[in-house]
Amino acid sequence: MTTQNIAILGASGYTGAELVRLIATHPTMRISALAADRKAGLTMAEVFPHLRHLDLPHLCRIEEIDFGAVDLVFCALPHATSQVVIRDLPRGVKVVDLSADFRLRDPAAYESWYGQPHAALDLQAEAVYGLTEFYRDEIRAARLVAGTGCNAATGLYALLPLVEAAVIDLDDIVIDLKTGVSGAGRSLKEGLLHSEVSEGFHAYNVAKHRHLAEFDQEFSKAAGSRVEVTFVPHLLPQNRGILATVYVKGEAAQIHETLAARYAGEPFLHVLPMGESPATRHVRGSNHVHLGVVADRRPGRAIVFSTLDNLTKGSSGQAIQNANLVLGLEETAGLTLAPLFP
Amino acid sequence: MTTQNIAILGASGYTGAELVRLIATHPTMRISALAADRKAGLTMAEVFPHLRHLDLPHLCRIEEIDFGAVDLVFCALPHATSQVVIRDLPRGVKVVDLSADFRLRDPAAYESWYGQPHAALDLQAEAVYGLTEFYRDEIRAARLVAGTGCNAATGLYALLPLVEAAVIDLDDIVIDLKTGVSGAGRSLKEGLLHSEVSEGFHAYNVAKHRHLAEFDQEFSKAAGSRVEVTFVPHLLPQNRGILATVYVKGEAAQIHETLAARYAGEPFLHVLPMGESPATRHVRGSNHVHLGVVADRRPGRAIVFSTLDNLTKGSSGQAIQNANLVLGLEETAGLTLAPLFP
Amino acid sequence: MTTQNIAILGASGYTGAELVRLIATHPTMRISALAADRKAGLTMAEVFPHLRHLDLPHLCRIEEIDFGAVDLVFCALPHATSQVVIRDLPRGVKVVDLSADFRLRDPAAYESWYGQPHAALDLQAEAVYGLTEFYRDEIRAARLVAGTGCNAATGLYALLPLVEAAVIDLDDIVIDLKTGVSGAGRSLKEGLLHSEVSEGFHAYNVAKHRHLAEFDQEFSKAAGSRVEVTFVPHLLPQNRGILATVYVKGEAAQIHETLAARYAGEPFLHVLPMGESPATRHVRGSNHVHLGVVADRRPGRAIVFSTLDNLTKGSSGQAIQNANLVLGLEETAGLTLAPLFP
Amino acid sequence: MTTQNIAILGASGYTGAELVRLIATHPTMRISALAADRKAGLTMAEVFPHLRHLDLPHLCRIEEIDFGAVDLVFCALPHATSQVVIRDLPRGVKVVDLSADFRLRDPAAYESWYGQPHAALDLQAEAVYGLTEFYRDEIRAARLVAGTGCNAATGLYALLPLVEAAVIDLDDIVIDLKTGVSGAGRSLKEGLLHSEVSEGFHAYNVAKHRHLAEFDQEFSKAAGSRVEVTFVPHLLPQNRGILATVYVKGEAAQIHETLAARYAGEPFLHVLPMGESPATRHVRGSNHVHLGVVADRRPGRAIVFSTLDNLTKGSSGQAIQNANLVLGLEETAGLTLAPLFP
Repeated sequence: MTTQNIAILGASGYTGAELVRLIATHPTMRISALAADRKAGLTMAEVFPHLRHLDLPHLCRIEEIDFGAVDLVFCALPHATSQVVIRDLPRGVKVVDLSADFRLRDPAAYESWYGQPHAALDLQAEAVYGLTEFYRDEIRAARLVAGTGCNAATGLYALLPLVEAAVIDLDDIVIDLKTGVSGAGRSLKEGLLHSEVSEGFHAYNVAKHRHLAEFDQEFSKAAGSRVEVTFVPHLLPQNRGILATVYVKGEAAQIHETLAARYAGEPFLHVLPMGESPATRHVRGSNHVHLGVVADRRPGRAIVFSTLDNLTKGSSGQAIQNANLVLGLEETAGLTLAPLFP
Repeated sequence: MTTQNIAILGASGYTGAELVRLIATHPTMRISALAADRKAGLTMAEVFPHLRHLDLPHLCRIEEIDFGAVDLVFCALPHATSQVVIRDLPRGVKVVDLSADFRLRDPAAYESWYGQPHAALDLQAEAVYGLTEFYRDEIRAARLVAGTGCNAATGLYALLPLVEAAVIDLDDIVIDLKTGVSGAGRSLKEGLLHSEVSEGFHAYNVAKHRHLAEFDQEFSKAAGSRVEVTFVPHLLPQNRGILATVYVKGEAAQIHETLAARYAGEPFLHVLPMGESPATRHVRGSNHVHLGVVADRRPGRAIVFSTLDNLTKGSSGQAIQNANLVLGLEETAGLTLAPLFP
Repeated sequence: MTTQNIAILGASGYTGAELVRLIATHPTMRISALAADRKAGLTMAEVFPHLRHLDLPHLCRIEEIDFGAVDLVFCALPHATSQVVIRDLPRGVKVVDLSADFRLRDPAAYESWYGQPHAALDLQAEAVYGLTEFYRDEIRAARLVAGTGCNAATGLYALLPLVEAAVIDLDDIVIDLKTGVSGAGRSLKEGLLHSEVSEGFHAYNVAKHRHLAEFDQEFSKAAGSRVEVTFVPHLLPQNRGILATVYVKGEAAQIHETLAARYAGEPFLHVLPMGESPATRHVRGSNHVHLGVVADRRPGRAIVFSTLDNLTKGSSGQAIQNANLVLGLEETAGLTLAPLFP
Repeated sequence: MTTQNIAILGASGYTGAELVRLIATHPTMRISALAADRKAGLTMAEVFPHLRHLDLPHLCRIEEIDFGAVDLVFCALPHATSQVVIRDLPRGVKVVDLSADFRLRDPAAYESWYGQPHAALDLQAEAVYGLTEFYRDEIRAARLVAGTGCNAATGLYALLPLVEAAVIDLDDIVIDLKTGVSGAGRSLKEGLLHSEVSEGFHAYNVAKHRHLAEFDQEFSKAAGSRVEVTFVPHLLPQNRGILATVYVKGEAAQIHETLAARYAGEPFLHVLPMGESPATRHVRGSNHVHLGVVADRRPGRAIVFSTLDNLTKGSSGQAIQNANLVLGLEETAGLTLAPLFP
């Protein structure tokens, strides 16, 4: 069986570690390089002891990697850094980026939301948005795939078929989203300390989170006209998992049918029976998405739920799913792990 | 200084223990009886070791209590039981009830939401709804105060002044609420086990939670016409704290001003500066409520936040606040504890 | 490739669900029956929504299973029940039991620790203790394997090689053990509620936990004389993971060498570099054990650490490892998942 | 009633906030200055929103404080900084220090454990060790009280009476201690992130934690000869609470009697009935200590448990208890709050 040589840039963060965890049981991918500039020289076991049992290359600097021997690069670097690094990679290497750098098609939107002009405009134009179930063909043909925001993916799975099918009022969409703390990464911020997060709950970036840019782009494209939603993310006292509670105007039964029909053949997207709602704990550590639809007591209104694991389907699992397509592999390869509960 | 003799019925539940915790530092209340039928004969230290240092009466059966020597009864029994027990108390004793039994004025609404006719209709008519800041005068004169639902209180504090002042669209109110698990009490249910709750998040009783009955009653009364909201509660992986995220149509600045003006003199209600949002951890264990208002990016829409501790301001602290009024004491007596953080 | 038909008895508990999770990616095992008497007729998705994506048989009653078509039974029933059910199975079927029923060789010890005479004495005599790395050959030849206690396994991995090699004082062994709450199963007990477990820590069954019987049996056998240890288990506010801190008298370097040499070829047992200590989070959801040795500041004393996931290597993962041996399969089949962190 | 003017140096850390929380309900103390150099100019509500309801001075720089108007200073600064700041305070002001700087009597021991010579040797000689129940008279007369280490206090309460009474073997004492994460303060370290702490458990500073210096000092003094213990601290996935499990050789009944007799009149120290063991959750947020004694199954051995809240009795509550003595107030003033459970 042919193996694919994989390099991970930014291997010392949580999405980097999650890539390694998943690739560890991927049937054909092989990790040939792990880059993490500030931790170059260390073993992965020193940075992530849970990967101690794996036979992995030492962490290195990006410039030490021989990209001629690499089939695909996962880039798990911070945004802004990512675009510069990817711009300078050899053209032959395929790239799945997990940062925010190539998600937006519109350079003006990028500059507006991220506060600086883009440094690789032609790549931005070329990149494919990595919401696999909606861009499968483009991803198969892509050289550069831009992983979605983890919050964005959660909301898009709930809403995109409904916008496409025009079964909801586009003017009154509210996305109340709750996310685990690992989505914020391993960075040293006071607000991420255990003492500050556990046994508590709050909203953040209220009505101005950058993933709004992805909602605007994808909903407007699907609707054929400008769509703006209300979006409030909250921080949960748990590590993994996002749940979006989406308030819409439309017929619950029609909404349920639309989602069920749209996702009928999908290996990772599961629409629960009408009236049931999902839980983050039931997708933890897996690439699965659980969706639910409940009718409001008020006619013509419904609540749609969507949940996924931010580190798996929300970033690293999605990245591997897309890499499988880019490399011509089975789309689900390495992603069949069941969720970990309890 | 005069002391008040207090009896607590249902002392082996969390709201019972919370009453004891608060009364322990109340300047004049004295616990003279603690009833818990199934645990009668035990000491409170055996049922709640955190109260070991207090000098408390043994748990007893309700019929063992000499109500002639009791000034006020806190009834922390399950709903349905509560109405029967209170009905049979001597008329002279004042009662603050923490159950759902006397919250609804309309017998038909009660029967519809709770599935059975009310067993004490005249008391139901007499009871005062315990949302202190809105029924202060009635509570002072009351013999029976009905504590609000903890979720209901959280949503009412955010919305009632806005409904009264008619500064929001009454047809498009969404209350997305998240609550800690202690609100469900100490009952043995699979869904309350640590393995089922921690590291996970989900909605429950979607669009059909019984606290909707309180929203309907209070909002309709304030508006002078039938008002129905959309309400979805979720279960947080933490013990204490409720945060409601309320989506409304209205001008954020006007909403903020309305709340700030309405609560200006209140000892326990605090409106944060415009644009800030609160966290459950910052009210934990206290009788305080933190409220915030943030403008949506879409003109004419706003998000209102409200947070309180379900066991304190949401039930036992509120009960003591109301008891203070009933007994002619300082309203804040025994309730000046600062929140516990972290 | 030949497949093995697997039946799981007691599929509605956590160890049952963990077996299904692991078998879901096992290369050749196939689940042909799932029994759970009280939940017979339900789907596994109704009992464990995280397994929704799998194609599984409905839950049934044990007597509905055609054991003639089953290659191996995992018995995840409560102790006492287990011995009766296994006694009545057809002799031809191989069994891996996860209960306490067949762990002890001595009928008197069983009766003393478990409070009743054993109902299947000949099976008790025949069963092999499932500590794979110490009973590998016997397990390969066994018809009935008795899974170890999860706490017992954690302590035995730290100590058994040291007792065998006589490098520690056998009279002064202290095992201070901390376990996650899922080890107590899905049973409805007040002490397992989230409100009672989270943000708190305590010891339980101090110096009298039943897993002491396994320590006594295995250490005494290894030493050739009666060995008794001090053993105190504690409950952690987390779902998965056991860490044992073991205090011994002996030379740390020699202890480290002994463990490292003993486990050198083992796929799941990893001895950390001298002076390092492990964390439960780094083995979560995996079949791996991390061991560490640190010298005390006082000469001739050392601390040995051992950690594993109670539901995986402590029960269901161990069970599959043993089943692989019983069935003549690769020992690590289905057990190569990396730990889930964070 | 006379009030005491209090200044807190280091008010932006957790022990500073805990001092404010407790003083908020102290009958006579009044906070007149809050210093936090890096946050000078901010309000306390900006740094600790849970204190929003209090009327407090703005945070300032130490040099802005008029110490002539201050009766007592709580110094909650990092060690090494603390000794320099306290050295330079006016001699007239009384000081309760919460750092490690004045705990050790022996300059050589200080230098050995903390890696540098002490900068205020005469103050070091003058300071009184703040274990209230053992140094009450000295504290009453002191100008400078050195708060104990939180881990040290937990172990000392369990053992000091036993060492004094010579009822245990001094050569075989093992302290296995578990602490919540708030003990590490609000500093930005990767190991304190929620993703790194929650759902996991591990040991740290094994057999070399600096609180060993306090054990050595106090046990040796009590015994009249050098005593060394084995001490291993672990980090719990919770914010507050320390539990020490202490393994000793001695008669359990005699040990229990010794502790019960020694602490009989103490307002904050509670010895549980023989055979019971305590839980951290039952002292959370309070100044209480719960102690328990259980006999091992092996004659002549016992396990002693001790639990307290690291931020309250382990630091800020203890500091206020000592300040009450220094100021001639009722020892329990401001410290009568019951624990917060759940």
